[in-house]
Amino acid sequence: MGRKLAVIALGGNALLRGDQIGTIEEQEQNTTDTLENLVFLLEEGYNLIITHGNGPQVGNILMRNDAGEQLYGIAQMPVDICVADSQGGIGYMIERMFRNVLNRHGIKRNIVCIVTQVLVDSNDPAFSDPQKRIGKICSREEAERLSREKGWVFREEIKVDGGYRRVVPSPVPVGIMNDNVIRELALNGHIVIAAGGGGIPVYLDENNDVRTTEAVVDKDMASSLLATRTGADEFYILTDVPYVYINYKKPDQQVKEFLNYADARRYLDEGHFSKGSMAPKIEACLNFIRNGGRMSVITEAFKLADKKYGTKITMEYED
Amino acid sequence: MGRKLAVIALGGNALLRGDQIGTIEEQEQNTTDTLENLVFLLEEGYNLIITHGNGPQVGNILMRNDAGEQLYGIAQMPVDICVADSQGGIGYMIERMFRNVLNRHGIKRNIVCIVTQVLVDSNDPAFSDPQKRIGKICSREEAERLSREKGWVFREEIKVDGGYRRVVPSPVPVGIMNDNVIRELALNGHIVIAAGGGGIPVYLDENNDVRTTEAVVDKDMASSLLATRTGADEFYILTDVPYVYINYKKPDQQVKEFLNYADARRYLDEGHFSKGSMAPKIEACLNFIRNGGRMSVITEAFKLADKKYGTKITMEYED
Repeated sequence: MGRKLAVIALGGNALLRGDQIGTIEEQEQNTTDTLENLVFLLEEGYNLIITHGNGPQVGNILMRNDAGEQLYGIAQMPVDICVADSQGGIGYMIERMFRNVLNRHGIKRNIVCIVTQVLVDSNDPAFSDPQKRIGKICSREEAERLSREKGWVFREEIKVDGGYRRVVPSPVPVGIMNDNVIRELALNGHIVIAAGGGGIPVYLDENNDVRTTEAVVDKDMASSLLATRTGADEFYILTDVPYVYINYKKPDQQVKEFLNYADARRYLDEGHFSKGSMAPKIEACLNFIRNGGRMSVITEAFKLADKKYGTKITMEYED
Repeated sequence: MGRKLAVIALGGNALLRGDQIGTIEEQEQNTTDTLENLVFLLEEGYNLIITHGNGPQVGNILMRNDAGEQLYGIAQMPVDICVADSQGGIGYMIERMFRNVLNRHGIKRNIVCIVTQVLVDSNDPAFSDPQKRIGKICSREEAERLSREKGWVFREEIKVDGGYRRVVPSPVPVGIMNDNVIRELALNGHIVIAAGGGGIPVYLDENNDVRTTEAVVDKDMASSLLATRTGADEFYILTDVPYVYINYKKPDQQVKEFLNYADARRYLDEGHFSKGSMAPKIEACLNFIRNGGRMSVITEAFKLADKKYGTKITMEYED
């Protein structure tokens, strides 16, 4: 088709803002506002693959599982099923909102949402050092009980005195199931929604059976791998800041509109980017560039269409 | 490719039996047992599309939404999101179990799960006569409160004294979103999982925007429409009985191994099939046949591979 292929990772913020309570109406409106910013890519003839976060949504699903067990004795679903549920709900919402955005712009493109498993390595060191906090904040007693009954691992919650929270491993993604199908659909002009919430983490056992694991995969790392595996030209991470900064929120804060691979790598190694937030985004962008991607962009969800915003990361400076 | 295409609708029973409490382990085991019965179709060279029910699962999701609001004040999601969630969770589970079944049989086929919206007509008479019971059983007071607060419609629950239950419309499906993509993938040899739980019901408004509606679509009717739209040769409904019967559970009960269109239509019109259960299955099969499908089969999930079971419905008798 000769069109450029872009993978766009929608951050939690692109779907639901931190100051909102999470009704479906809020999510639909944010999603619509975000997707409006992708229209220019379609008008420029791009093929698109959309990935998305699921933090607030899967958090709510986990809480509802807890509440359903407490109130009605309904068996809780494991993390993989909760992530899969969130892919269904969020993927459908994005698909429906995007269909309506395209309809209003008179753009004829089809949109397909694929429930996506992401392969991890069962020997990933993350499995012996679970760090990702999920689900509700518990008292010490409840954490001990759940730990006993369900084998869950808990850590003290720094922000809440006496609070504990379940932690699960966050292994590195090493493969995307159906990446060939996703690529084929995207190259045929379909907009594909895939790898939501970092994908449903699974691994292959010694018999090549697909096994589930109580873990979550970083959304940006999975999206970057999907971008590489589908041969995308460009990889966009839509988040809540318009640029990447050096010395962020300090007096000598510096906007970086262009970053080459070597500089970005150096800033990352020097610890300029916060661990749970910007650092994995930068790393995801660098992975994509190192594996042959032409450009990674980190920008604010609602500002993508305005090209003066956004940090562009390439192998060499473009200017 | 020249291969035959079959659409297989997995009933609730194929995933979760009535006497089980609904843990993920139970669901995975039932699903595996059911999918083992599809292997012979692949060995015979068929292409496959799998659809599935979601009754117990979406029931639990609705209950968890209720519990999450009561216990933690988490905003409830509307029915369309709950159905979409269930497509993600169940679709993923079927995909993973089927990958493992195929792995053990040494069969190389890819499996893709597509989150599927199903179009209904906003003028469908079902919207003025909601009949499908969903969610928990409430007291009269709670039903009145929820009716006031959320605009839900309730009906008395016959089986539970003083119990009320929410009802939603069950409109007839008139279109399947992405039926062309599903067909294309299936004809390329991918096993496609689609239209779970009857699909997420949506309709097009006067501007061609896709609108959501608090409704559920019958799983067999949606599956039948998908079979027609994808040009399938055969349509299988896997349920909890090995045959269709006339005078079911009466002294003069009669097994029907073969039914032609005219006879099946007549039995249906004469009221031989129970309204919420076998009647829509027969109607779904007849729709498929009337629209050019070669054969519909209704049989027990775990007995599909044994061809002596199952009622075969065709335009004319085959024997």
